[in-house]
Amino acid sequence: MLSALKPLKLGQLSELFQQKLADIKPVDDKLRPVAQAHLDNLTKPLGSLGRLEDTAARLFCIAGGKLPLAVDKAMMFTIAADHGVVAEGVSSAKQEVTRQMLQNFLAGGAGINALCKSAGWDFLAVDAGVAGPELPHSPALISAKIALGTQNIAYGPAMSKEQTLMALLLGLDLALLAAKRGYRCLGAGEMGIGNTTPSSALFCAWLGFTPIESVGVGAGLPQEALAHKAQVVAKALSANKSSIDSGDALDALAALGGLEIAVMAGIMLGAAQSGLPMLIDGFIATAAYLAASRLCPAVDGYCIFAHCSAESAHKAVLEKLGKTALLDLGMRLGEGTGAAVALPMARAAAAVYNDMASFAGAGVNHNV
Amino acid sequence: MLSALKPLKLGQLSELFQQKLADIKPVDDKLRPVAQAHLDNLTKPLGSLGRLEDTAARLFCIAGGKLPLAVDKAMMFTIAADHGVVAEGVSSAKQEVTRQMLQNFLAGGAGINALCKSAGWDFLAVDAGVAGPELPHSPALISAKIALGTQNIAYGPAMSKEQTLMALLLGLDLALLAAKRGYRCLGAGEMGIGNTTPSSALFCAWLGFTPIESVGVGAGLPQEALAHKAQVVAKALSANKSSIDSGDALDALAALGGLEIAVMAGIMLGAAQSGLPMLIDGFIATAAYLAASRLCPAVDGYCIFAHCSAESAHKAVLEKLGKTALLDLGMRLGEGTGAAVALPMARAAAAVYNDMASFAGAGVNHNV
Repeated sequence: MLSALKPLKLGQLSELFQQKLADIKPVDDKLRPVAQAHLDNLTKPLGSLGRLEDTAARLFCIAGGKLPLAVDKAMMFTIAADHGVVAEGVSSAKQEVTRQMLQNFLAGGAGINALCKSAGWDFLAVDAGVAGPELPHSPALISAKIALGTQNIAYGPAMSKEQTLMALLLGLDLALLAAKRGYRCLGAGEMGIGNTTPSSALFCAWLGFTPIESVGVGAGLPQEALAHKAQVVAKALSANKSSIDSGDALDALAALGGLEIAVMAGIMLGAAQSGLPMLIDGFIATAAYLAASRLCPAVDGYCIFAHCSAESAHKAVLEKLGKTALLDLGMRLGEGTGAAVALPMARAAAAVYNDMASFAGAGVNHNV
Repeated sequence: MLSALKPLKLGQLSELFQQKLADIKPVDDKLRPVAQAHLDNLTKPLGSLGRLEDTAARLFCIAGGKLPLAVDKAMMFTIAADHGVVAEGVSSAKQEVTRQMLQNFLAGGAGINALCKSAGWDFLAVDAGVAGPELPHSPALISAKIALGTQNIAYGPAMSKEQTLMALLLGLDLALLAAKRGYRCLGAGEMGIGNTTPSSALFCAWLGFTPIESVGVGAGLPQEALAHKAQVVAKALSANKSSIDSGDALDALAALGGLEIAVMAGIMLGAAQSGLPMLIDGFIATAAYLAASRLCPAVDGYCIFAHCSAESAHKAVLEKLGKTALLDLGMRLGEGTGAAVALPMARAAAAVYNDMASFAGAGVNHNV
């Protein structure tokens, strides 16, 4: 299904993508008071399960009111791709680490493997554009290289529009495939040395952050290198000014984004298209969320923000978006790890909604 | 085993309790750098798993360095008891709700049931002093009434020293029994209408809070009733001044505490005695933690703070104790629900420690 896209031209890709977007229905927020009435009648003080109640109500709306609520089985996709901007010295690690970590995912030794297994996610790694040749076949790998990494955003667009659309459509197809296989919740993570820089650039372009506000240490950049990283972001914003100013989210994503960011955005769109909840990981996933929600605002209702990253700008980004993440554990690993550890919270929310007794049913006075 | 305590006199109970305390060994914090060295060599940026790494290191120290780290099976005890101070109008719910909710626990319809099932805890309810007759036998119930509720702390001590020691020993025995049955992690929650008031009083006595700083709305008291609740706390502090001023933690716990609070403290002591990690729930569990750690400071090393409650003073209490809880979900249900939802975080921490590959093992450059 995926390779069939490759011979398509820009016009065809664009048309196909628009058809998919047209299929996305907004979550029915009129169900929210129905959910709250149910939650308020369960044997607990009013509102006393806090964010779990919000999450349960969101799951109820996403499910269109169909019970029982469920997040199992859950599928985590971790998308790997490389970034031309590493040539600017914006990362503490060399580009080859993207490939090494992808191999680590396939061998089951990475953080995302441990955390998916612990929390009950199935896991697939996706090569959407890692530099170098294809990796050998592995049951945990989807090989779908769109390019061997992006171009350097400091001098021009990261991707062509065709590549960007192919990445988005790849994500949409992955989500659709998962939905067809019975998955009830999706997550998306990333591995791409250098990918905090395009994410920061997208936050500048779309949320009005200044470069220095938008950058953080990523995987371990020294503090003194942040000014340089901000300069690279500024350079990228300048080099891609016309694409940003066009007001077309696809232009900005192609100019400043990355292959894995576009695939993640596609997965979010696909989750929405399939009516599934999507757990949004950290800094880079939030850039993908922004892309998805600008391409199709209805995607927002399907998204549950999993965690606030320790990458310094993430907190400010979430505040600007008016989002409160479930967890704040000082994590900044990427790979989808923040979404992975939040799945049990979503599962808990569903359990509360499905399994708790009502006051009348349990014979408990309603003023508890 | 538990009923055998009943005929004992104060001196015997006290001696038995002191013997148990003498068995508690502090966690070996010299293992902490060993744990950190292992964590720092796993395929992730340094420190990038934040609080999960702290938790993994704590589990490693508690386990005395024995691998693999584990929190399964995990046992949650929810202790129910009544409070004489409800006569002062400090609660939005009537005393009979304690009993109704205990029945709800046994029927499996409460929040703690749903959340234990979801997160993978086994669950037992304990009647340590609910007003009224014993409940019919149930496989999920330990009937161990020490009294039919406490006395009204506004006029004198909540419990006799004998009752307090019996409650502590009950908790110790429950933890020991769980350890013998192979449980690797313990949790303790509570149900007792009125029990935020004794907890607030203990925070005043032990941490220097003023009554108005220490009180919150509990299960749903109107804001305008907080001044009255603070007055009742002040009255309790005054009526029990000599017990508080004695400097003996047992005196203060007997004077201001509750049967379920003392049993929870006993479970924490028993977890420490058995070398098991203990997930500390919210506001009332933190009062029990304070009692336990004043009776035996070594208990602290075994405790992992699960969540920050929305009960208003809990944040300030945790800050004063220098503790950062894993979760902050706006929950204030009690029953152990905050500890219940945090178990997957502890499980994730253990999985990271046990399952992730090292840089050398995975062939990943160490500067990732």
